[in-house]
Amino acid sequence: MIRSNGVAPASRDTLLGGLSIDGARLWDALAALGEIGAFDDERSGLRGVNRLALTDADAAGRRHVVAAMRALDLELTVDRIGNVYGRRRGTDDALAPVMMGSHIDSVPTAGRFDGCLGVLGGLEVLRTLADHGVVTRRPLVVAFFTDEEGARFGTDMLGSAVAAGRLPLEAAYALADRAGLTVHGELERIGFLGTAPERLSPPHAYVECHIEQGPTLRQAGVDLGAVTGVQAISWHEVTIVGKSAHAGTTPMELRHDAGVACAKINLGLRTLIASGRFGPGFRATMGAIVPHPGLVNIVPGRLVCTVDLRNPDDALMRAAEQAVLALYEDVSRDEGVSVTWRQTARTNHVPFAEAIQARVTSAAAARGLSVRSLVSGAGHDAQELAHLCPAGMVFVPGEFDGISHNPREFSTPEQCTNGVNVLLDVVLDLAAEA
Amino acid sequence: MIRSNGVAPASRDTLLGGLSIDGARLWDALAALGEIGAFDDERSGLRGVNRLALTDADAAGRRHVVAAMRALDLELTVDRIGNVYGRRRGTDDALAPVMMGSHIDSVPTAGRFDGCLGVLGGLEVLRTLADHGVVTRRPLVVAFFTDEEGARFGTDMLGSAVAAGRLPLEAAYALADRAGLTVHGELERIGFLGTAPERLSPPHAYVECHIEQGPTLRQAGVDLGAVTGVQAISWHEVTIVGKSAHAGTTPMELRHDAGVACAKINLGLRTLIASGRFGPGFRATMGAIVPHPGLVNIVPGRLVCTVDLRNPDDALMRAAEQAVLALYEDVSRDEGVSVTWRQTARTNHVPFAEAIQARVTSAAAARGLSVRSLVSGAGHDAQELAHLCPAGMVFVPGEFDGISHNPREFSTPEQCTNGVNVLLDVVLDLAAEA
Repeated sequence: MIRSNGVAPASRDTLLGGLSIDGARLWDALAALGEIGAFDDERSGLRGVNRLALTDADAAGRRHVVAAMRALDLELTVDRIGNVYGRRRGTDDALAPVMMGSHIDSVPTAGRFDGCLGVLGGLEVLRTLADHGVVTRRPLVVAFFTDEEGARFGTDMLGSAVAAGRLPLEAAYALADRAGLTVHGELERIGFLGTAPERLSPPHAYVECHIEQGPTLRQAGVDLGAVTGVQAISWHEVTIVGKSAHAGTTPMELRHDAGVACAKINLGLRTLIASGRFGPGFRATMGAIVPHPGLVNIVPGRLVCTVDLRNPDDALMRAAEQAVLALYEDVSRDEGVSVTWRQTARTNHVPFAEAIQARVTSAAAARGLSVRSLVSGAGHDAQELAHLCPAGMVFVPGEFDGISHNPREFSTPEQCTNGVNVLLDVVLDLAAEA
Repeated sequence: MIRSNGVAPASRDTLLGGLSIDGARLWDALAALGEIGAFDDERSGLRGVNRLALTDADAAGRRHVVAAMRALDLELTVDRIGNVYGRRRGTDDALAPVMMGSHIDSVPTAGRFDGCLGVLGGLEVLRTLADHGVVTRRPLVVAFFTDEEGARFGTDMLGSAVAAGRLPLEAAYALADRAGLTVHGELERIGFLGTAPERLSPPHAYVECHIEQGPTLRQAGVDLGAVTGVQAISWHEVTIVGKSAHAGTTPMELRHDAGVACAKINLGLRTLIASGRFGPGFRATMGAIVPHPGLVNIVPGRLVCTVDLRNPDDALMRAAEQAVLALYEDVSRDEGVSVTWRQTARTNHVPFAEAIQARVTSAAAARGLSVRSLVSGAGHDAQELAHLCPAGMVFVPGEFDGISHNPREFSTPEQCTNGVNVLLDVVLDLAAEA
C-alpha cells in the first residue's frame, strides 16, 4: 500500500502500531442505522429494530448506507438482486478487490448489531484509511447483501447466494412473502432493482465481522472469535393434514388433530437432541406454527410449521435429518394425519479459509486480544462468498448469553471496536497481496 | 289454534295426521343459503361455507333470510345487537310468543347445516302453517342471533347472551376481531345495528332444531335427539412468554421456548383426558396457536393459544379446570416461561326444560321416529334462551361421524325433515297453551 500523498507504504508493524479505527464513530454509526425501522419493545423496555427485507424500513436503511458510501466517494454498484457494493480504488486497481460486508436487513424483532456491524465496520475501515491517507494496493469493496435473514421470503442468504451463483436469479425473483408479494416486485418498488450482473466476479478475499449471536465467547471471557466455518443448516416446511372438527362434540378417539401432531413433532425434536446421538452441537427449533382454521372451538384440521436443524458435523446432520423424517412418520401413524415436508434451505458445513483464520488469530494476538476458534451457529453471507474466494469471519462476543434476533442483543463499544480493528488489520494484509 | 278462514282449531291428533313440512322446500332453502359465502374446498372437493359473523358474507346471508321473512309477512325486529326476529301473529296475540331460531353466522370452514337448520326450519314451519291456513293461539317468532360461533370476536352465543341479559350490550359492542374491528362498528357497517331494545321479553318457550355435530345419534342408528341440556364450557386464552433467540446459535439448555411450552400444554391436555379422572365426557382442544415472531430461525419468545374445555358434569369440569391450571404451572416451571391465562367463555351445564324434552320425545314417537336423550356437546343459543323461558332442542343426526365445522358436514334431507316435523309438532303444542 502507499499513502495517497505518495509516501511509500508503511510496513505492517508500523501500521499496527499506528492505525486503529475510531470506535466512537463506529458506535454512532450503529446507533444511527439502528434508528431506522426502530420500535419500542414493550416487554424489554428496549429499542428494537424491524427492517424486514425489501420493506420500506429496509429501503430507508439502504438509502442511509448508500449515502454513507457516497460520502466516502465509493464507486457504487447495485446488482440485479439488489446487492449493493461500494468500491474504493487501489493503487493496482485492476487486481481483484478485498471485500468486506454483511447485511442490513433484519428479523422483525432484531437488535442493531446483527449484520450492521459487518457493513458499518467495513465503512469505518475505509473511513480510517481515508483519515490517514492510506490507499491499499488492491481495491477494497464494502458490500451489503439482500435478505440475509430469510425472514420474509423464506430463503436466507438470498442476495449472496445469487451473487455466488448458487441460486438462480429467476428463482430468487419468484420468491413471495405471505402476502404474495415477490422479491422482484418489492426490489422494483423500493428502487433497488439494479442493472449490474448478479454474478459476482471473484474477489481476492472476503472478510466479515459479525456478532457471535451465541454465548461461547462471552462465557469464556474471550475477546474475539476466529470462525472456522458455518455449521450445516437444514430447514423444513412441514404440512400436517388431519381433520377439522367441532371441539365440543367430537369424541377424543375420533380426532385427527393437526395441532396435537405438531406438538408431538416439537417435543420429539427435543427427545432427539436429548438422545445425544447427533452430537453436542445439534440444535432443532420449531419457529413457525400456523394452524387452520386456528379458532378456539375447532380441532385444527391442517397446520403448517417449520423445523430448523443445525449441526456442525455433516455426517451427524444427515443422520439427524433421517431421524426427523422417521419422527414425522411416527407422528403421522400415531395421530392418523398426513405429514409432508419440503426443504426450504439446506447447506452443508462450510469451512472458511485457514489462511484467513490464521490472520485473524495473529492480528488479535498482535493487539493483545484473546481469541478462540469456533464454528458459527448461524448462517452468514460469508458462507456464500466462500464459494467464490477465500473467506473468513471475525466474531465479536455478545452480552446476555449472546442473545440475538431480539431487542436485547448487545455488544459493547469495546467489543465492536476490537472486532473492526482486527477486520482492518486482516484487510490491510490481504489488500497488500500481489 | 284456528284456521284463518274461521274454522275452529283442529285437534292435535288431526294435525299430526295431516300437517307436515315440505322437506324438499326446506332442502332447497338450506341449499340457497348455503351458496352465500360458499367456497370450493380443495381438500375435500366439497362446497364449504364461510359466513364469519358481521362480514359481508354474513350480511348477505342476513338479507337473504330477512327477504324470506318478509315474503311470509312476518313483523320484523332488529335489536341493538343485530339479532333479527320475524313475528307471526297469533289469535291471542297479546300472549308471549313461542320462539324458534338459531344462527346463520358460521366458522370459516363450515358446512350449510349448523345453525341454518334451526332458522330455515323455523321459517319452513311458518310456511307450512301458512300453506294450511293455520293460525296458532300464541304468536310465533323465528329468530336468528348474532355471532353464535364466537369465531371472529372470541365470545360465542354473543347475540343471544345479550338478549338474555347475561352479557352487557356495551361489553359486546367493544369486542374486536384480530384486525381491531369492533362488533359495534361492524354491525353499523353491514346495516344491522338495529334500534329495538336488546333485552328480550321472555317468550313462552323456545325450541331450536340443530344438527348434533357429533357421532352419537348416527352411530346408534337413532332418528332424533331430545336434548337434555348443554354441557359446561370453559375457554382460556393462554399467553406464554419465554425468550426469543437465534435458532442456530442458542444452546438448547439456554432456551425458553414458548412453542415447546405450548406443545407440552397441548399434550398435557391429552394426558388429563386419558387419566379418566374428569369423566368420559371431558374434552379439551387447543384450536388457536400464534407464536411470535413465528419465523423459521427464531425460537418463539411469546405465544398465544386457546384451550377449550367441555364437560357435561359441573363438578368434574371444576376439577378439570384446576388440573389444567396446575398443568400451566408445571409447564411454566419446567420451561422457565411465564404462563398466564384469561377466561374468554365460561358456562355451567345448562339443563333444558323437562316438559319440552318430553314433548320432543312424544312427538317423535307419534311420528314413528326413534329418539334418544342426550346432552349437547356444543354451545347453542338455546342455552342462553333457557335463562328467559322453558327452552329445548331437537337434534338431527349427522353423517360421517357427525363431522361439523367442516365442509363435509352433512345431514340427509330425511334427517332434516324429521327434525323440523318434530319442531312443528312441539311448537304447535306450545303455541296452543294458555
